[in-house]
Formats: sequence, structure tokens, C-alpha cells
Amino acid sequence: MQSLVDQIVYVSDMFGTAVFAFSGVLVAGRLRMDAFGVLVLAAVTAIGGGTIRDMILGATPVFWVRDTLYIWVILVTALLGMWLAGLPKRLPWYVLPVADAFGLALFTVIGAQKALHFGASGLIAVLMGTMTGVAGGMIRDVLAREIPMVLQKEIYATACILGGIVYTVALECEVERVLAMFVSMGVVFGLRVAAIYWHLSLPTFSLQRG
Amino acid sequence: MQSLVDQIVYVSDMFGTAVFAFSGVLVAGRLRMDAFGVLVLAAVTAIGGGTIRDMILGATPVFWVRDTLYIWVILVTALLGMWLAGLPKRLPWYVLPVADAFGLALFTVIGAQKALHFGASGLIAVLMGTMTGVAGGMIRDVLAREIPMVLQKEIYATACILGGIVYTVALECEVERVLAMFVSMGVVFGLRVAAIYWHLSLPTFSLQRG
Amino acid sequence: MQSLVDQIVYVSDMFGTAVFAFSGVLVAGRLRMDAFGVLVLAAVTAIGGGTIRDMILGATPVFWVRDTLYIWVILVTALLGMWLAGLPKRLPWYVLPVADAFGLALFTVIGAQKALHFGASGLIAVLMGTMTGVAGGMIRDVLAREIPMVLQKEIYATACILGGIVYTVALECEVERVLAMFVSMGVVFGLRVAAIYWHLSLPTFSLQRG
Repeated sequence: MQSLVDQIVYVSDMFGTAVFAFSGVLVAGRLRMDAFGVLVLAAVTAIGGGTIRDMILGATPVFWVRDTLYIWVILVTALLGMWLAGLPKRLPWYVLPVADAFGLALFTVIGAQKALHFGASGLIAVLMGTMTGVAGGMIRDVLAREIPMVLQKEIYATACILGGIVYTVALECEVERVLAMFVSMGVVFGLRVAAIYWHLSLPTFSLQRG
Repeated sequence: MQSLVDQIVYVSDMFGTAVFAFSGVLVAGRLRMDAFGVLVLAAVTAIGGGTIRDMILGATPVFWVRDTLYIWVILVTALLGMWLAGLPKRLPWYVLPVADAFGLALFTVIGAQKALHFGASGLIAVLMGTMTGVAGGMIRDVLAREIPMVLQKEIYATACILGGIVYTVALECEVERVLAMFVSMGVVFGLRVAAIYWHLSLPTFSLQRG
Repeated sequence: MQSLVDQIVYVSDMFGTAVFAFSGVLVAGRLRMDAFGVLVLAAVTAIGGGTIRDMILGATPVFWVRDTLYIWVILVTALLGMWLAGLPKRLPWYVLPVADAFGLALFTVIGAQKALHFGASGLIAVLMGTMTGVAGGMIRDVLAREIPMVLQKEIYATACILGGIVYTVALECEVERVLAMFVSMGVVFGLRVAAIYWHLSLPTFSLQRG
């Protein structure tokens, strides 16, 4: 049973990696980058956050050196992505944001889990979860010479922070790991989807504070 | 006695962390970032340099994973900072630069110390001291999509380099650690304060070379 | 014999470090940076890629902490470079690109070699070779507030990837290390020199795909 859960998490992790990589492909496409640029932006978005997390924790070699399937998923996504770059226009607009919300939820919980596994405190686990979720996108935006979107779009990182807190507190309260995982992923995913929906009717500047 | 010095250094380190974090808050405020952006820029400025230093030396998990007080100081500074962002206008103009000079001096010496503690040579200790002092501000500026100020304002990093050299040479000459610390911090602090004062009467382009 | 090869590689490595550092000096000069900015851009270009590689592999302290000759080469290059910044105009135009191609070829092979030495798979070795070759220049460009050139100029990183693949496959096929090295360096160098020559007659936008 536990092992089935781990397998589902593993497959979901690869799905999240592909979704994040595709968001890198789209940014690279907007900037008219070449095939290598597409690959770098895909990789940085998908595994950048987890890489920094592992380097900070001292979990080296980092995760994708130990398990190269992550790199294969990114390669395939980048190659397919260049042919499918027109796809988002033909999908309903909410498909990619919702897939992204799912990846964000999973990455947050996986990041927090890894920090706890390395003996970090709850506070650090929340930080590491958030970093796993958002740092890759931040590096992508810096390479694209943009101010990282996540620094000006509050509800994205906030969802990670709240989900990370729920996960950490649930574990402290001895909630079963699988239950804690699904509840906290639900918090991140639910907040993101709510934010995407809510965003439609609210002017963005109301999200900005000094 | 030694232990009292260590306690003073620790308290000063937290003060320096808060001052650097506040400088991140001010940049975030100028860019109309949201609360998460404020937090990221505060954290990156305050602990970015030390984090890179620790990752390069292999001192992992990095310092703030081992001692989460750094993160709490940043959280409180970021929260207070958003309410006090108007404060700098009401303080005499030199208060923040002088506090920053103090933080810079301390971070430089702490960084050099840690490198030596990990068996690095004097040259690397000077480098690591300088990196601890300036790299956080550099990442902050990159996230804010600016060319890092420190690369165009010579006397900032130069103060760290000279202070680091004084500290390393003093230790080689078997000067007592506490004395070496205060003398080299005095060099960094004195040079910065002199540079702030001197800046008033000198056109900036004279600081620039090809 | 083997030891002579190692010595040639070591000397070439320092030559490549100087060439890459000089390319950082030139960018710093264009941006009117001060002496510290010149030093940072020189260092970041020359050792940035290898530093990230070592941090990802967990090969810490990173290489230039263990062997400070790299730092001395960068210091001397940065100092000389500020006086010789006008030099490129007086050299035939192809001297610097060809020297850069040599550095790129060597860095790629050294990076792949180090990854294999740390037990990484062939795929990761190709990645680490490419990263050693191009990541330093990418950080240099980010600090200079430019979209990294390498993301929009395909044949630069592509040369590293192909050279890395040749090197890794050759080793798998039990080709002697020295031979594998020279052949794969020839691939990177040859492709780059061909690309430089070819670039003359082809409009750049033909290198860009969506």
C-alpha cells in the first residue's frame, strides 16, 4: 500500500516535471531562443528549485544526478514542446494553469518532506517546500531578463507557504503521512485554482503592497 | 571572556542580518512587490552571501538551516519593514548606510573566519569574506533586474577585500583572534563610512574605470 | 607519459581560465564597471560553470578552493586585462574566438570527466561538461543584465553537447582516455571554429527557432 502511494507520487513527480518544463519552453519561445535555450529554460524551471534545495541541505549529488529520468522527461518535453508550442492556444485557457497548480502542490510537499528527512526543523521544511515550488520559475524569469513573476503575484508562493505549514503541522500532530500529503496538496492546489479564478475579476494592482 | 565575545558577535550578526534584510525590503518596496517578494528580497540580501559561501565550502546544511534564528529575524524584519518603509525618510540620511557598513564589516570577518575554519588558504578566506559581504546584495539586484550596484561602486567591495586581508594577515602574524577581528572590522567600517562621506563631494564617474 | 598528459591538461586549463576571464573583462569594460566589477565578471565567467558543477556533484570544497592557482590566474588576467582592453582591436578578429573555442573544448571534457569520476551516468557527464563550458558565461550575462548569449546562439552549447557525447561514448567503447579527450576536444573546437567562420555568411536570425 505504502509502496503504491510512493509509485503514484513518483509518476506525479514526473508529470509535474513535464508541466514545469513546458512552462519554460513557452517562455523560451516568446524570446525566440534556439533549441539549447529552450532546453535550458525547460530544465531550469523544472529542476532549478529542487537543485538549490539539495545544495542547501547538502543532499549531493542532487536528485537528478541520482535519477536521470528527470532529465529524460525534460528532454522529451523540450523536443515535443517546440512542436507543440502552438498547443496552448487550442486548449481551454485553464488547462495549463491547473496542471501547473498540481505540479506546484506536489513539488511543495516533496520539498518539505526532503527537508524533514534531512533533519531540518518545521520552519525550514516550509521554506524548502516553497523553494522547491517557486525557485525554478524565478531562475527562468531571471534568465529571460524579467523580474520574477512570483515576486509580484502574491497568491502563488503564498499557496506553497500555507500548504507547507499544513503539511508540517499535520506531521507534528502525528497525522498519517499519506493523509498529511493529500490534505496539504489540496490546500496548495485549491488556493491556486481559487486564485486563478479570482484573478479574473480583480485588478492585479490590488495584489500589490509597498 | 572568549564566550562573551562570541555572544557579542552572535547578537551583532543578527543585527547585521536585520539591517541587510531591511535593505532588501526597501528595494522590494520601490518595485511594488507583494509580501512574498518583500520576504524573498529580504532573505536573499541577508543570507544569500553566506549561503553561497557555505555551498562552495561544503559546509552543508548551510548555516541558517542549522540555526533558524536567522530566518525569524528576516521574517520579523520583513513584516515590520513593510510598515516602517517610510522610516528612512524620517531618519537622518546617514543612519542606514552606517548600519549597513557595520553589517558589512561583521559579515566580512565572519565569512573569512568560516573559510579558515574549513582549512581554506588566506586568499580564499579574503574571497569568502568579500562574498559573504556583497553576494547577497548582488542577487537582490539581479532579482530586481538591475546591474548589481556593487560592481559599479568600487569602495564597497574594496573595503571588504582590504578588511579581509588585514584579518588574514593579522591571524598569520599570530595576533589574537578578537583583536584581529576588531581591527579588520574597523578597516571595513572606516573605509565605508569614509567612502559615504567622500562620495558627497566627488562625482561618481571618477570611480569608474574601463 | 600519462603524467605528461596531465601536466599539459593542467597548463591548458589555466590558459582556458585566462581566456574566459578575459571575456568577462571585456563585458565589464563595455558596462563601465569598476575594478571590482571587472574582477567579479572575470571570475564568474572563468570558474562559474565549474563551481556549479562541483556544488551539484557534491565535490566540495569546489576546485578553486583546493587549488588557488585558478584565482591567481583570474587576478592577473583581470589586472592585465584592464590595461590591455584595447588589445582585441589590434589583434586579428579571430584570435579571441579561437582561443575561446579552445577553452570551451577543454572545459567541456574536464567537466564530463569529473562527473564520471564522481560516478555519474553518461547523460549526466554530457550535461556537466556542457555546464562547465557555458554556465560561467551565462552568469556573466545575467550580471550584465543581458539575456545569456548562449541561449540564442545555438552552435555554442551544441558543440559542447556533441563533444560531450563523443567523449562519453568513446570511454564506454573503451577508447583510451587521452585519445577520447583529444577527439572530443577536436569536435567541440572544430564545430566552434566552423560556426565562427560560417556565421560570417549567414544572417543570425536563421539560427533562431521558436
